[in-house]
Amino acid sequence: MEKIGSQTNVRASRRAPRKIAHFLLAFVLLSCLITSSDTFKDCWNRRWWQKPTKKNVIFFVTDGMGPASLSMTRSFRQFTQNLTRDDILVLDHHLIGSSRTMSSDSLITDSAAGATAFSCALKSYNGAIGVDPSKQPCGTILEAAKLEGYHTGLVVTTRITDATPAAFSSHVDYRFQEDLIAQHQLGDYPLGRMVDLIIGGGRTHFYSAEDVVYGSRGSRSDGRSLIKEAIEDGWSYAGNRKEFDALDKGHNVSLPLLALLADYDIPFDLDRDDADFPSLEEQAMTAINALTEATRDSDKGFFLLIEGSRIDHAGHQNDPAAQVREVLAFDKAFEAVLNHAAESNVETILISTSDHETGGLVTAKQLSKAYPEYAWYPQALSDSQHSGEYLSKELLRYDGSNKSDFIEKTIFEKYMGIFDYTKNDTHDLLKLTSLAELNDKLNGMISTRAQIGWTTHGHSAVDVNIYGYANRQKTWLNLLDKLRGNRENTDVGQFMADFLNLDLQEVTDRIKKTKHSPNIDAVESLDTQTDEYHRGIYGSQDA
Amino acid sequence: MEKIGSQTNVRASRRAPRKIAHFLLAFVLLSCLITSSDTFKDCWNRRWWQKPTKKNVIFFVTDGMGPASLSMTRSFRQFTQNLTRDDILVLDHHLIGSSRTMSSDSLITDSAAGATAFSCALKSYNGAIGVDPSKQPCGTILEAAKLEGYHTGLVVTTRITDATPAAFSSHVDYRFQEDLIAQHQLGDYPLGRMVDLIIGGGRTHFYSAEDVVYGSRGSRSDGRSLIKEAIEDGWSYAGNRKEFDALDKGHNVSLPLLALLADYDIPFDLDRDDADFPSLEEQAMTAINALTEATRDSDKGFFLLIEGSRIDHAGHQNDPAAQVREVLAFDKAFEAVLNHAAESNVETILISTSDHETGGLVTAKQLSKAYPEYAWYPQALSDSQHSGEYLSKELLRYDGSNKSDFIEKTIFEKYMGIFDYTKNDTHDLLKLTSLAELNDKLNGMISTRAQIGWTTHGHSAVDVNIYGYANRQKTWLNLLDKLRGNRENTDVGQFMADFLNLDLQEVTDRIKKTKHSPNIDAVESLDTQTDEYHRGIYGSQDA
Repeated sequence: MEKIGSQTNVRASRRAPRKIAHFLLAFVLLSCLITSSDTFKDCWNRRWWQKPTKKNVIFFVTDGMGPASLSMTRSFRQFTQNLTRDDILVLDHHLIGSSRTMSSDSLITDSAAGATAFSCALKSYNGAIGVDPSKQPCGTILEAAKLEGYHTGLVVTTRITDATPAAFSSHVDYRFQEDLIAQHQLGDYPLGRMVDLIIGGGRTHFYSAEDVVYGSRGSRSDGRSLIKEAIEDGWSYAGNRKEFDALDKGHNVSLPLLALLADYDIPFDLDRDDADFPSLEEQAMTAINALTEATRDSDKGFFLLIEGSRIDHAGHQNDPAAQVREVLAFDKAFEAVLNHAAESNVETILISTSDHETGGLVTAKQLSKAYPEYAWYPQALSDSQHSGEYLSKELLRYDGSNKSDFIEKTIFEKYMGIFDYTKNDTHDLLKLTSLAELNDKLNGMISTRAQIGWTTHGHSAVDVNIYGYANRQKTWLNLLDKLRGNRENTDVGQFMADFLNLDLQEVTDRIKKTKHSPNIDAVESLDTQTDEYHRGIYGSQDA
Repeated sequence: MEKIGSQTNVRASRRAPRKIAHFLLAFVLLSCLITSSDTFKDCWNRRWWQKPTKKNVIFFVTDGMGPASLSMTRSFRQFTQNLTRDDILVLDHHLIGSSRTMSSDSLITDSAAGATAFSCALKSYNGAIGVDPSKQPCGTILEAAKLEGYHTGLVVTTRITDATPAAFSSHVDYRFQEDLIAQHQLGDYPLGRMVDLIIGGGRTHFYSAEDVVYGSRGSRSDGRSLIKEAIEDGWSYAGNRKEFDALDKGHNVSLPLLALLADYDIPFDLDRDDADFPSLEEQAMTAINALTEATRDSDKGFFLLIEGSRIDHAGHQNDPAAQVREVLAFDKAFEAVLNHAAESNVETILISTSDHETGGLVTAKQLSKAYPEYAWYPQALSDSQHSGEYLSKELLRYDGSNKSDFIEKTIFEKYMGIFDYTKNDTHDLLKLTSLAELNDKLNGMISTRAQIGWTTHGHSAVDVNIYGYANRQKTWLNLLDKLRGNRENTDVGQFMADFLNLDLQEVTDRIKKTKHSPNIDAVESLDTQTDEYHRGIYGSQDA
């Protein structure tokens, strides 16, 4: 009897903690269930009974991509690949809302204020890089993540010192201070080095006019070679396609990594020679693999920014043929990263959005006073084999004896697939001498034939889409719900910070009084802060 | 013992069904819980253990409203009412996704194919009203609802015979067959009368050139007075503001109701004289109240279409000042209906979307070759006190002796709030004689000052927003989830049909072989199917 009794007691004592656990779980579920839906969701989402999980955040920016770019690219893809209308972009499957984009000083934001809204979760003025409206540095999600033990990375197709990546990794009063931005990005800042991985263009701001690298001279005015200094500081460096390939898709990377693959921009995907430059997908997956391996034994994951930077440039240049290929290249990169995340055992979210729309793109252009037909023509875009930027440079480089013939047979017929040109078109191109004007003429010929309209070479105020994916959303409560619907752009940054339990204010408090940006003449800044577009046309010396 | 035993048996037999019910519920919940999220949600959403509930569907169409209209109107409202940027439109709070709009024969849809995608949940050709691509009638959600015992209604601000309401309530091969559409709407069709309530414009198609009603002559070519016939058939009729007011906000309505408040369009909200025409909100709430009272004792609710019809006309005319007021008037109507639904004890969903974008609206317009500033100016819209349509008609009506002075002092300064006009502007207006050209000139002056761009007088292909509200979404599973994300426009119709458990195919089977539309010459149809815009300019004789 005693034996049996004591066995019972043992069983009972073993059952007790289980009973308590069951009771607690039942209590939580019950309290959740009897309260309203939102409270229940919150209750569940908080998951205070679980230990903190390892997390990755991959933040995609489609610079300058508005709603019309999506329907244009989707239809272009369906047309060129003979797909049904149900065969939509990968992005399309993950739409969760839209973002309101105004900056603190204008209804139309620039990329600097747009990126600072994401990085610091606050509204600032056009031109602001990681600083608030009073020009005090604000803690960024990348910095907060790094300080919490996460790894961090930046992947872009334009200059790594351009507004979007800069706003996550530097603090300057005006976006054009790119030499200074490069210094911050390498760790020359009170917080020290915050970035573990850099892949993009913009090498020019990392060396000086006295240096010669791959046959080019840098543009730093202070004579420093940041590349040399970085290597001395322990960065591994990749400066061209061959050195990039040696990274073995990210499986052979020693962090920190500085990969500067072009002096300015990586060429438009439409012009890109695969022998010379990797695709955005290759860049992105190299970063993903390198960061995954670097964090394999850590209880913290990584924060990675991936930007389809030059969708914006195609918008500024009003070049629809280049833009659809940029969006498609981005969609492929997004798909590859998503597939990787779907297989990952680390809780991972992908958020993708734009800072603003560029160009005032409309998939409709009225060609005469007569009532317009309801149609636009993707074929005019698929016929075109190069960007206007590329063809304009070809025209400026031409030194043969029969330029008319070159324009008609090579530019119009061979590269643009246009055969219904007129002698006036040829004469226009013979006459024009500036890259911007040539660009406008060539891109206008494509846009007119496609019946694609544009209203500006700048930005517009339309809301932009937000896309999201969470590899743990196969639970019956969706953590993306908190970002669904129509949001301020700052909500996007705050959502990611909350997901990683980061306190941006804590970082802000550490740096708000630091000397970050030399005193810049405000007038000079206003003149130059919108030079992204012009640099897009004039400065791209890699193509 | 026997007694106790028998009591036990009685208790046991009483408990048995309860036990079975508990077991079944537990089984359902368990099977739901152990399967994946989507299955669980489906499982829960099906709710087969509940009896069918009484339901209302209120479907809003913002004809021609693309994404840019939203940010334009939101900022306009914040500017004019001095609100913070968080004070957004009511619609903004309910964004759930976007809709792909292409028709079966073009990347750019017209309103007829767009509305048929909603009403029949299928893609058809531009011009199609409730017919499929082979011109066979397709059952509409309004018809299916009516046949199941629901009440039905149509509320618009343009002609009730125009494409959007027509596609729910008639079946003709081409949208311009408005005389025939009017007949169908009143029940002259194999299915009989399907519509219980009509409030809108378009009276002209309900009486003939021989009739005189309120001083106007109708445009029916067959000599019939459908108004007289409808009254004889038992319709109650309201033909002006006074008769509309007698409906006592819907509390004094005998159904069926035919309320035709204008020969063509109800004036733009910007021009509307409240003494002559109700607002869209008043129209909508009159319909809601009338249908709510009519279905009070029924186990079936109602299906109601409410269209902000003339957002589209403002787009066709490239008139941003008129458009922001149209969108605001729509937002108010949406808010009023939403507030009513929130208080209703009938399970109600509101779905709001557009058929397409109109005008190629961009909240950015480059004014010169110089690089554009990043800004647009709502003040230019708030300064303008009338639509271009209204002012153009004023100019055409002017018979005084000093037209230059009238143009400058009355049109520019008093009505448009423009003081920086030039003598060229005045001369342009003196010279122009057509409504369309005058309209273009006046709206262009506003658009330029606001830095608002347009690329067409037709439609564009951009995805349009979908908004949703369910008064029972305070459960912890959201029935709108099935419509979230990026969808085909046909999914919107299918979602509403599914919500009401309607079988559209069953209705199609009943009517597909019926004689619905006289044989129309296809060439004639192609010439006239896009006349909505011209009619919007030339035909609006009510203002």
